[in-house]
Amino acid sequence: MYDLVIVGGGPAGLSAAVYAARYKINFAIVAPMWGGFVNEAHLVENWLGDKSITGQELSAKFIDHTKSLKPTMITANVQAIEKINDGFEVVTRDKKIQAKKIILAVGTERNKLGVKGEEEFLGKGVSYCATCDGFFFKNKTVIVAGSGDAACTGATFLSDVADKVYLIYRSPKLKAEPIWIDKVNAAPNITCMPDSKLKEITGQGRVEKIILEDNTEIATDGVFIEVGSTPTTYITQKLGIETDEKGYIKVDVNQKTSVEGVYAAGDITTNSSKFKQIIVAAAEGAVAVYNSYIELKS
Amino acid sequence: MYDLVIVGGGPAGLSAAVYAARYKINFAIVAPMWGGFVNEAHLVENWLGDKSITGQELSAKFIDHTKSLKPTMITANVQAIEKINDGFEVVTRDKKIQAKKIILAVGTERNKLGVKGEEEFLGKGVSYCATCDGFFFKNKTVIVAGSGDAACTGATFLSDVADKVYLIYRSPKLKAEPIWIDKVNAAPNITCMPDSKLKEITGQGRVEKIILEDNTEIATDGVFIEVGSTPTTYITQKLGIETDEKGYIKVDVNQKTSVEGVYAAGDITTNSSKFKQIIVAAAEGAVAVYNSYIELKS
Repeated sequence: MYDLVIVGGGPAGLSAAVYAARYKINFAIVAPMWGGFVNEAHLVENWLGDKSITGQELSAKFIDHTKSLKPTMITANVQAIEKINDGFEVVTRDKKIQAKKIILAVGTERNKLGVKGEEEFLGKGVSYCATCDGFFFKNKTVIVAGSGDAACTGATFLSDVADKVYLIYRSPKLKAEPIWIDKVNAAPNITCMPDSKLKEITGQGRVEKIILEDNTEIATDGVFIEVGSTPTTYITQKLGIETDEKGYIKVDVNQKTSVEGVYAAGDITTNSSKFKQIIVAAAEGAVAVYNSYIELKS
Repeated sequence: MYDLVIVGGGPAGLSAAVYAARYKINFAIVAPMWGGFVNEAHLVENWLGDKSITGQELSAKFIDHTKSLKPTMITANVQAIEKINDGFEVVTRDKKIQAKKIILAVGTERNKLGVKGEEEFLGKGVSYCATCDGFFFKNKTVIVAGSGDAACTGATFLSDVADKVYLIYRSPKLKAEPIWIDKVNAAPNITCMPDSKLKEITGQGRVEKIILEDNTEIATDGVFIEVGSTPTTYITQKLGIETDEKGYIKVDVNQKTSVEGVYAAGDITTNSSKFKQIIVAAAEGAVAVYNSYIELKS
């Protein structure tokens, strides 16, 4: 039985692992992949100390730092976390891992638009990650759906690759950091379409066009959906952890959840419901470890 | 009048400046020096993504990133912050800077031991920064007073420079991250002296020896005092901001203080009273800016 199992491999989980290793806690970290959404960021320019770094590079630095401390890293999907005597059991397909304390750093899942054609054309022109798939659209026309940071950075990135980018959003204004909005406005090949709602994605075997609610049709080769994310709640439900109405886990200043022995950090917490930032996730992971360490020692 | 003035130049203040610049807030940052206590850290090994970096290097990266966004950086000691109509006035020796919102990131000041000789021999063998002054003690004998992270990292650093290091602390055990305690124990030339209280520092013009409460005398060339720090309260008193009994500023999850329009971030806040970390300070700076931005726009 471990003293601590960290569930999640993004900035919150990796920062927790670095701190746990330095506190010499008997722990493991479990995640389906390492780096989390940071991997998918085109550029990160607000991680203090790095003026401009690709998401993949930053993620690689995080993983590298974590690995250098030689923690037990288990690459697996966590299916459930259950309460057992004296602790918890983290269930993956092949393993059951016991722990006295848990840090939940499972983050969020990307929102779907829920429009016709979205599922059908996934991987055939529909993508949830501009930086992952953008290069397939060299000299083509693409749609980005969304108004936040991810949509604007995605559109900016795509404007360098594709011929033409349409940025489509329901709200009257973009909701990203003003510096990203400036970049969108400065790109001659991005057309902003406020007050617009996507209705359907169509094509023959691949995406060929989109149709808006007002029946406007736009011919396109790709559709990038960047409409935020929702907390990964299936794990929290099982434990009966208190969440807000959207499913974000309620935490106190020590990152403690409503369930004794369970901490949460990063995008999954109520603190992050409006402001999901790598630096905040990393800090929360550190705070969660510190407080679980105090609890383990007392 | 600025929309926002950030007071403090450590990780919280610099991170706030990076975010404020990206949000295109009309702001200035004021501090007597840049980088804060990070400058004085021998090695930082828990800043996610950097396995091992000197405090000065990390601090330089923070400053460099901030400067690249060309904010108004005012190098000055802030003497007071006063409430005025519609905002606040930040008073330095030469300037009065008006702002609608304030982020206090003024951190802490190093604790003194308050023993005989401490003040007399400051700069003559007594120092509050091992990494700043350690190199003057090559092949000599030094004392480090303290039991926490700063004392242990300081002692470890000094063990590579000096011939002999005595680590003196009142508590029965060291209170640092276990990984630092290991390093202290592994250094053949560090002698740990638990349950020991320094009474006096003496010498002829320079430090020559220390005397403990039990009258043990140890001949030494230097005394490094690393006994924690206390919030910089003189600014908060003037504004009537609510603090805890130790002077740490009370903040909510949005980094708001009890005074409308004033935010606090970093080591000065109650969140940091027990766990002062660079990553936490940087995150708090970002959160404070985000929330002040929302307030400014509403």
